[in-house]
Amino acid sequence: MRRALALAVTPGVPLGPNPRVGCVLLDADGTTVAEGFHRGAGTPHAEAAALAEAGDAARGATAVVTLEPCNHTGRTGPCSEALVAAGVRRVVFAQPDTNPVAVGGAARLRDAGVDVVGEQLVDEAAAVNRAWTFAITHGRPFVTWKFATTLDGRSAATDGTSRWVSSRSARLDTHRLRALCDTMLVGTHTVEVDDPELTVRDEVDQPVAIQPLRAVMGLRELPGDRRIFNDRAETVHLRTRDPREALARLHELDRQHVFLEGGPTLARAFLAAGLVDEVVTYVAPMLLGAGSSAVGDLGITTITDALHLHVTDVTVLQGHDGEDTNVRLTMTPLPRRN
Amino acid sequence: MRRALALAVTPGVPLGPNPRVGCVLLDADGTTVAEGFHRGAGTPHAEAAALAEAGDAARGATAVVTLEPCNHTGRTGPCSEALVAAGVRRVVFAQPDTNPVAVGGAARLRDAGVDVVGEQLVDEAAAVNRAWTFAITHGRPFVTWKFATTLDGRSAATDGTSRWVSSRSARLDTHRLRALCDTMLVGTHTVEVDDPELTVRDEVDQPVAIQPLRAVMGLRELPGDRRIFNDRAETVHLRTRDPREALARLHELDRQHVFLEGGPTLARAFLAAGLVDEVVTYVAPMLLGAGSSAVGDLGITTITDALHLHVTDVTVLQGHDGEDTNVRLTMTPLPRRN
Ligand SMILES: NC(=O)c1ccc[n+]([C@@H]2O[C@H](COP(=O)([O-])OP(=O)(O)OC[C@H]3O[C@@H](n4cnc5c(N)ncnc54)[C@H](OP(=O)(O)O)[C@@H]3O)[C@@H](O)[C@H]2O)c1
Ligand SMILES: NC(=O)c1ccc[n+]([C@@H]2O[C@H](COP(=O)([O-])OP(=O)(O)OC[C@H]3O[C@@H](n4cnc5c(N)ncnc54)[C@H](OP(=O)(O)O)[C@@H]3O)[C@@H](O)[C@H]2O)c1
Repeated sequence: MRRALALAVTPGVPLGPNPRVGCVLLDADGTTVAEGFHRGAGTPHAEAAALAEAGDAARGATAVVTLEPCNHTGRTGPCSEALVAAGVRRVVFAQPDTNPVAVGGAARLRDAGVDVVGEQLVDEAAAVNRAWTFAITHGRPFVTWKFATTLDGRSAATDGTSRWVSSRSARLDTHRLRALCDTMLVGTHTVEVDDPELTVRDEVDQPVAIQPLRAVMGLRELPGDRRIFNDRAETVHLRTRDPREALARLHELDRQHVFLEGGPTLARAFLAAGLVDEVVTYVAPMLLGAGSSAVGDLGITTITDALHLHVTDVTVLQGHDGEDTNVRLTMTPLPRRN
Repeated sequence: MRRALALAVTPGVPLGPNPRVGCVLLDADGTTVAEGFHRGAGTPHAEAAALAEAGDAARGATAVVTLEPCNHTGRTGPCSEALVAAGVRRVVFAQPDTNPVAVGGAARLRDAGVDVVGEQLVDEAAAVNRAWTFAITHGRPFVTWKFATTLDGRSAATDGTSRWVSSRSARLDTHRLRALCDTMLVGTHTVEVDDPELTVRDEVDQPVAIQPLRAVMGLRELPGDRRIFNDRAETVHLRTRDPREALARLHELDRQHVFLEGGPTLARAFLAAGLVDEVVTYVAPMLLGAGSSAVGDLGITTITDALHLHVTDVTVLQGHDGEDTNVRLTMTPLPRRN
């Protein structure tokens, strides 16, 4: 199963709406007959890839797969049937498939007389497809809110200047995180004021091949000449101020992981609605003493109402060539204490 | 020399105005004859302690000592003479003693025909006595400014409540750092408003035996019933608003390491005067969105004037029993970039 999980996260697998899945076929002696992994929407599932590689050797084999084999005909046929047809005798899987359209693979295999063992290393497998699993479970995308701040909670100086609060390492790291999401979301005002391109760029500042969706949220019309509307990536304007509605729209668009980048008004709306699942903060070791706050008013007036977060990771982003060292905190919001 | 350095930092050595020093006496074969370390003001120097232990065995020995032997008669006689009188043939030392009243030990030893090798592992030795070395070099105490902040730069909610922004681990850690200093400094206003006791307390909230000096700075008279004036530690009122003058007074009082704990007005004055040598920040993973800023106005209006800090340490203070995990950043201010 560990090998199957490693296959699932083969570098270069495009992140799409589909889960990452790995499959290993073993003969009766436990020797590997074939391996396969899913390369993204429109390509064969991991099981199909492994079966194709195995050919006749699949007969009597054990399939070890990181996700319960699917039971529906999408762009490819149901994997449960393919496994039965190939004569696979035993299937060991990790994460159960709770996707309503795919559910039922294990039952179908058992009906066909296949020996099925489920839920091995479930947590590891679910972690590989964190956002996919979340979206299936909650019926909406997972939301990561990212903000950068000085040590004293500022995002810009009093004259509005803010280049660069984040160090180069932090900016590169942000692009890396953006690339792990499938959607970037900002408010209309940020588009008007900052005119960001909202693309993922690599170390030499070139846009990468596969770009997340760019989403902008708010009621006002936006001039078509904004950079967000250029042809480097897809863009959608969500004409709503309701975070729940926006996420529902994005869910319909098969989006599973939203990277919320601002501004403060939008962040506040998502926080207030309890729709922030993860917070990533870049702390720059600098003091401004005044200037705009990195986080806007949250309607909190007394300390017992503070929004507490559970720290899941602290990473030091070492500065190079005299650049500041930034610190990245990754956190999940905790339920209100009172 | 490594053994001598280890002796110098023997746990339990009281931190006083004196440097921490270790000494090892070796015979011609390199076998240890005796060891000694300085236990604080009023007790024998490390060399004297080792010589006393060695007795006649000191004749012909090599003395390895972390600080250049002193050359003045204070509460104990000059170590240079004691080494000569004991018949020590060779002295290897680490950090040169630049204390004006003690300087010249190496020269005196050489004059007496002792073979002297200096400046071995100087950096390690200086680090053992960082504040002492700093105070000798700069003629003033080393200043550590500590502040606690939420992730969004707040120290209290809009209604003034602030218990507890810092987690229990962070508060314990603060007491540990206080104990490493010899002086705690606050402004008169903090004494009026918060009435802090400013003592070092242990894990069960009991005051430790050796307390740093409590210093309060500002012109106004303070009511004698403030807790800072209780008998748990010494207290001094520095009737000045000039940070330089305050540090000069503390230097006269043999203070080497000031722990500046606020409030914002005092911190600002020290920052503006370039008299902050180290910044320790406790970041609490919570959001308030509004409330008092952890750091007051610094007169900075544009991003290029920001005060940048060099990060020397990032430590995660794990929360227990559902407490927040706090993050401690230790930093040194960098020269202004423009
Ligand atoms: N520190 C950072 O990391 C960061 C990141 C991004 C931006 N910024 C800064 O933030 C500033 C813009 O701030 P902002 O808060 O005005 O921008 P914003 O959050 O991007 O946009 C606010 C706009 O979004 C729309 N909107 C959508 N949902 C809403 C809701 N639930 N409630 C209210 N409005 C909603 C409204 O516009 P409609 O009238 O169109 O509905 C509103 O005016 C810029 O100066 C930018 O530089 C900072
Ligand atoms: N977040 C934290 O870690 C922290 C720490 C401590 C306090 N606090 C909070 O800070 C608040 C008090 O703030 P604060 O800034 O007024 O307190 P402060 O800095 O402790 O005291 C300010 C006073 O110090 C005197 N002073 C000394 N040197 C000065 C100088 N160079 N310039 C100006 N004044 C000088 C002045 O009083 P004279 O008129 O007597 O000269 C001034 O009013 C309290 O609410 C307290 O709870 C927060």
